[in-house]
Parts: sequence; C-alpha cells; structure tokens
Amino acid sequence: MKIGIVGGTGDIGEGIAMRLAPRYDVIVGSRDEARAHESCTCSIASLKNRGISCRSFSGATNQDAISCADVVILAVPFRNVISTLESLSCFEDKIVISPVNPMEKQDYFMFVPPPDGSAALMIRRLLPQETRICSAFNTIAANKWKALDEDLTYSVPVCGDDAEAKNVVMGIVNSISKLQAFDAGPLAASSMVEALTPLLLNIARYNKMRDVGIQFR
Amino acid sequence: MKIGIVGGTGDIGEGIAMRLAPRYDVIVGSRDEARAHESCTCSIASLKNRGISCRSFSGATNQDAISCADVVILAVPFRNVISTLESLSCFEDKIVISPVNPMEKQDYFMFVPPPDGSAALMIRRLLPQETRICSAFNTIAANKWKALDEDLTYSVPVCGDDAEAKNVVMGIVNSISKLQAFDAGPLAASSMVEALTPLLLNIARYNKMRDVGIQFR
Repeated sequence: MKIGIVGGTGDIGEGIAMRLAPRYDVIVGSRDEARAHESCTCSIASLKNRGISCRSFSGATNQDAISCADVVILAVPFRNVISTLESLSCFEDKIVISPVNPMEKQDYFMFVPPPDGSAALMIRRLLPQETRICSAFNTIAANKWKALDEDLTYSVPVCGDDAEAKNVVMGIVNSISKLQAFDAGPLAASSMVEALTPLLLNIARYNKMRDVGIQFR
Repeated sequence: MKIGIVGGTGDIGEGIAMRLAPRYDVIVGSRDEARAHESCTCSIASLKNRGISCRSFSGATNQDAISCADVVILAVPFRNVISTLESLSCFEDKIVISPVNPMEKQDYFMFVPPPDGSAALMIRRLLPQETRICSAFNTIAANKWKALDEDLTYSVPVCGDDAEAKNVVMGIVNSISKLQAFDAGPLAASSMVEALTPLLLNIARYNKMRDVGIQFR
C-alpha cells in the first residue's frame, strides 16, 4: 500500500512518515520538492541507525504524493488546509486521513471549529464526493511520532462514513507501534475527536506534563 | 467536609454518594425526600455488606442538601439543569461541581452545547456570582460509580476559575478509589471535557465495549 503525506516535512508529517516506513511505501510530499528529498534522506538515516529497514521511502511534491498514493494523510495545520487543498487535485479515488485539529491558543487552548462543525467535515466539503475521508491520528503529539525509541501506547479514535475505508485506516493505525484504533463513529462525530487535542494540550500545560496522550479503557 | 448531591437518587448521584461516603459527610438530595431516605438506607446497607463504614450519610430535599453542604454536586441530566436550578437557592457560599454533559443521541452521540458554550458556563450564568463552580466527574459512567468492588482507575479533568475551589475539588477526586485529577484549565475550557462523554459513548457503542473511561498519560 502506498501512503502519501501532504505536509510530510512538517513536525507531524516527518514523524508519521518514519513510523509508517517499515511497513508501507511512503511518499513524503512538500510544497518544496527538494525539502522533501532532504527530509527523506534524514529519516532513512535515522531509521538505519536504529537497524530499522524500510520499504520505498521517497520525497515528492504534495501533488505527486497524492497522485501516486492509495491513502493520503493531510499533515497540515488547520490554518493551511483550505489553501493547500485548493492547490491540489486527484483526490477522487483516494482514502484521505485528516489528523487536523482546528484550535486556537488564548490563555489556554480552545477547540474552535469551522462552520462545518469540524475540520473533517470541512475537508469533506472541499474534496470530491468520491473521496473517502476518515479522521485519525488527531491526538498523537509530534514529539511522540519522532521518538522512535519509544512505543506509542495510545488509543486512536477513527471516524468515517465508508466502512471499507475505515477498516483500512484502522489497520494502518494498528500496524504502528502499539497504537490501538477505536471506531468512533461517522465522520460527523469527528468534532469530539478534534476537541480532544486542545484538551490534552491544556492538561499538559496545567499539570506540567509533556506530550499527553490518551487511552480508552 | 459536607458534600450535598442534588439529584442524589439518580443513577450517577447514587453511585457518587456511595464512593464519597467513607470519607465525607454526604447529604443525598432529591425532589422527593422520602426517596432520598430510601436510597441512603440501601446505600448504607450495600457499603456495610462490604465492610465499608461511612461517616454521616443522610437523605434530604435537594434544597436541604445544598443548604447544609460545603460542596454541592449537580448530578442532574442536562435537560433538567435549568428547571432544577430555578427551584433552588442558597448557592452563594458553595463550591458547585458540574458533571453535566449536554449531548443528544442521534444515530450516534453528539456534543450539543447550550449557547453559553458548555453546561458549566450555563450553570455559572444561572447561579449567583459568588458561587465557585468547577466541572469534574464528567466521564465516569454510572455503572462504574456503583461497582463498589471495582477500582476506578480513570483520569478526571477538572476545570474552574477559582484556584482554591479547584484544589478542593481535585482533592475530592483524588480521594475516591484510584481516580486521578488533572487540572484542565479555566471553566471556559469545560466544553472540551463535556465533549469527551459523547465520544466515549460512541467508542463503547461502535467497539462493543461497556462503560468506557479514559486515562491521560
């Protein structure tokens, strides 16, 4: 399976790419293709140092990362989602994963959804009708993705309307470290997943913790 | 410390009362005082059967449960909050805990806040300015409160604007079974805590689990 990462050289994207690379063909997308190649070279070296071998791991433009992939991860901050998606195409036959959390930092972090109700529903409106969208990976901190020597022992809620696509996404989640996927309902239920991230950032801030995650039990 | 429970004969209220009774003076409030006495008799018997001794554990009207208490827990479903609070007084010098979650069941559970943004902020608007309000206990299922033979190994986010009141509430949380309190910021951040409960209900439903809770880690 080929997984393309839009924004693959960002904090979250780079970490996700390294976690996926041992099991999937990964295409790291960036607005700047040279930067994508650089990021891949660094990531492959990091993995090699740890004796982790990977499959195909290549840099590309964001557009090529989409065009070549079966599954696309939108590793883009909420504020850049609209402009990024407006400049890209060929989403029709893809499964698209949104880890996007619309939030603002005031004195504390606050979930501030777009008029659609969630980033996931906004993305559904912006993409072709055939695209199968799931929200997933919303609550895993960038530092944790990159801490390759640490197990990821978190729960990951997954929302989506297409059962087959959701199964694929939950399979990807469950194949990474010790992540455990949970079906969290239809895409319209994503707002409650996206609201978790500002909550976790507040918990970290007010309790002097770092990179707080969750487990359902 | 005296803790009054408004709605103390409901599913959640009854369970909370039993968990608090070994350490605090508990006043179980109800619209129907006779029902409050009955509930107390049953609860005391349940505790005794397990060799758990309790402090003062008495039934009362909701109003007396407030008037006699230092801390009041509003164990009332969201749909009854406004009518309940309109009929009650003497909140001025109290710490009030809201475990209330405004949500609706469609095909799935959805967080549907009032115009204030959260149940906690609505309750703040309805109560006197001097009342110190915290949200807490939002995500603990009624069945778990009542399963006295089981440890409660969950994390409990607590929001509030008054540092002293929040400390008192976090102390209460930490004194119950193995619950662990986390400061989740000001009262205005409660919406993200309240949204957790419909998320957990969805997780339970779609993954064939029961009474799902959370841990931050």
